[in-house]
Amino acid sequence: MQPDHSSRRQSRRWFLRLGAAWSAALVACRSRSIGPSSEPRVLGAPVSPYGSRSGFEKATRFFNRDTKVPLEEASSRTPLHDTYGIITPSSLHFERHHAGVPELDPSTHTLTIHGLVERPLVFTVDELKRMPSVSRIHFLECSGNSGSEWRGGSFDSDVQRSHGLTSCSEWTGVPVATLLRECSVKTGASWVLAEGADACKLARSIPMSKIMEDALVAYAQNGEPLRPEQGYPMRLFLPGWEGNANVKWLRRLKVLDRPAMTREETSKYTDLMPDGTARQFTFVMEAKSLITRPSGGDTLPGPGVYEMTGVAWSGRGRISGVEITVDGGSSWTPAELQSPVLPRAHTRFRWTWTWDGREALFASRCTDETGYTQPTVAALVNVRGTSSQYHNNGIQAWRIAADGKVSNGNRG
Amino acid sequence: MQPDHSSRRQSRRWFLRLGAAWSAALVACRSRSIGPSSEPRVLGAPVSPYGSRSGFEKATRFFNRDTKVPLEEASSRTPLHDTYGIITPSSLHFERHHAGVPELDPSTHTLTIHGLVERPLVFTVDELKRMPSVSRIHFLECSGNSGSEWRGGSFDSDVQRSHGLTSCSEWTGVPVATLLRECSVKTGASWVLAEGADACKLARSIPMSKIMEDALVAYAQNGEPLRPEQGYPMRLFLPGWEGNANVKWLRRLKVLDRPAMTREETSKYTDLMPDGTARQFTFVMEAKSLITRPSGGDTLPGPGVYEMTGVAWSGRGRISGVEITVDGGSSWTPAELQSPVLPRAHTRFRWTWTWDGREALFASRCTDETGYTQPTVAALVNVRGTSSQYHNNGIQAWRIAADGKVSNGNRG
Repeated sequence: MQPDHSSRRQSRRWFLRLGAAWSAALVACRSRSIGPSSEPRVLGAPVSPYGSRSGFEKATRFFNRDTKVPLEEASSRTPLHDTYGIITPSSLHFERHHAGVPELDPSTHTLTIHGLVERPLVFTVDELKRMPSVSRIHFLECSGNSGSEWRGGSFDSDVQRSHGLTSCSEWTGVPVATLLRECSVKTGASWVLAEGADACKLARSIPMSKIMEDALVAYAQNGEPLRPEQGYPMRLFLPGWEGNANVKWLRRLKVLDRPAMTREETSKYTDLMPDGTARQFTFVMEAKSLITRPSGGDTLPGPGVYEMTGVAWSGRGRISGVEITVDGGSSWTPAELQSPVLPRAHTRFRWTWTWDGREALFASRCTDETGYTQPTVAALVNVRGTSSQYHNNGIQAWRIAADGKVSNGNRG
Repeated sequence: MQPDHSSRRQSRRWFLRLGAAWSAALVACRSRSIGPSSEPRVLGAPVSPYGSRSGFEKATRFFNRDTKVPLEEASSRTPLHDTYGIITPSSLHFERHHAGVPELDPSTHTLTIHGLVERPLVFTVDELKRMPSVSRIHFLECSGNSGSEWRGGSFDSDVQRSHGLTSCSEWTGVPVATLLRECSVKTGASWVLAEGADACKLARSIPMSKIMEDALVAYAQNGEPLRPEQGYPMRLFLPGWEGNANVKWLRRLKVLDRPAMTREETSKYTDLMPDGTARQFTFVMEAKSLITRPSGGDTLPGPGVYEMTGVAWSGRGRISGVEITVDGGSSWTPAELQSPVLPRAHTRFRWTWTWDGREALFASRCTDETGYTQPTVAALVNVRGTSSQYHNNGIQAWRIAADGKVSNGNRG
């Protein structure tokens, strides 16, 4: 009999009760007959040129189909509840497009570097791929991730809907510093405009200091060429900085002596403060963590011992610690960080929880190597109000009811 | 005009000459007009549930179609020349099947643990997924990788054909030690037989010490469930040990007081020595490295400065160093190791080479944290003869001719 293998259903059957409850699980295991299950006795499928996942697996990116936002200008979210480790499968990396995914031919697409340089240059994709390159494992997060939590979130939101705009990949590319040195940057150059080749020509101004520190023109992701929805054949990659500044389908870098004040850094992607002014160029994604299992939408079968797990990351470097509360923030205990703990990358954490069967509010909070600790949403609102959509790195609480149902704990 | 985007052609256009030759490249770049290339002015594709690679990308696993070996009992090889960083895309992970890829239903497939245990247990996939898990980035290598080099290899072999039976992924699963503790292993237990659910029921005996040290029942790879050709829904994973022992489609672990002496550890997967005896249970994949670019099949356009890159790994731990020779082994200089350098994982190395345009023999050799240094093939042959197919971790030399053509340098 073919069961329902929907992502939702699979994901809600995650939990094993250990300890006291573990005995019951063992009884269940023992009660089955020991012996082979029905298995194939004929040859299976042959080797193949390029593999694909099992037809039994159905996890997908989530996007809202019932909205007036065209799907070419929408976002899709990583199923954090159903992913493992720190690498996000490229096929499930979140998306955020402003004019859809262009189909660019790598044999004709070029990157132009011009503006305040002695020697403007045009690079083909092949030329870039021949240059000295680096690979690094980094998260990428949309600045709008968990934006709904500014206003307490939705009661029925789950971790994919609330926090699925973060993913983590191994990115390979050429340091932009290498390219700019070849162009001989002129005196006074202090910003670089990065422009994409999508129909809206999305553009952001990036400070020269970041460009020279660690910016990449990335052409590969998780060992193979960038996926189309991640900017194929090349994108700007700015470790730890908000997603939209990592311009996809990169076609142009113009060296400037001031920011270009594009639409995406004036009317969009600024943070409206309570006094009516707006924070601008708030690039860094601050330290953030969340428990992905158990999380909103789960139902625990009863009191017992459970493994909690989740991810933490910081745009300023390595995660130095993650703590867990199961009493609404009164007390915190350290979770185990899984190695490797890499700078500006998702860090997987795990913790063992004995749930006594009573209503509880549980959450994680992280600290990064600069000593900064993830704040509460209330602390953020206290400073920034509730008019901003962006840069909500507040603690995400989940509430478990006595019946085992888990829901968004950020709602008062 | 649509160019030929075959994997082979792409891969042979990798090189950039820096330094003196770099000036010519800059002239080439400058000679193009500065301005937008032809790019879309209409909306692109919408967000999607599960992404796929660009239609322009054609890299594939290699397998020989012109052989009497059925493709259900064959191997396919990772295009090491066309992959980046340390993560191998799951779709391009090498394969080696003995009876094809079975289609197993995760709702009915089970893992039985029995033999010398107090409590035999049967686990469903869901039960395993609820248990405390770990994720680790590790290489997996077939013991037959670069087996052709025992006899000098083929003149026209490239790095995919000669060495493509190694790949590296992030694996997630449950420590086997956790499962065995729940079964209460009896006194005298010293080996574990692992058996797959493929039609041939491939089986290997694994020493209890390895099982308890770091063996996993792995159910995820690179953030999502195992691919079918990697053992979906679960496989044994033995960090640093030869591929075939990492039994795929795992159905049974039987605890024993001696090895089971299966076909795959008696007539197969043993190493025939010059005196007619055979080494048995040679599980560990010793330290190994190779230059993937440039490598056999490449043609360098002329003298100049080139970036060399490749991968190194050791079944005994971390790589501590990689050295490069460009004079046939007379002198060696250190390459740069790219972080993170993880135990029992591919480590990416890079080195800058000024080629003077004359014939040369170039190669890499690595040393691991135990102090062991990768030997020459000649040194291996001196001890083991040429009757073995397996465990050739010798230095792989490439020869560049004066016309820039690169070929297998292991041929005398």
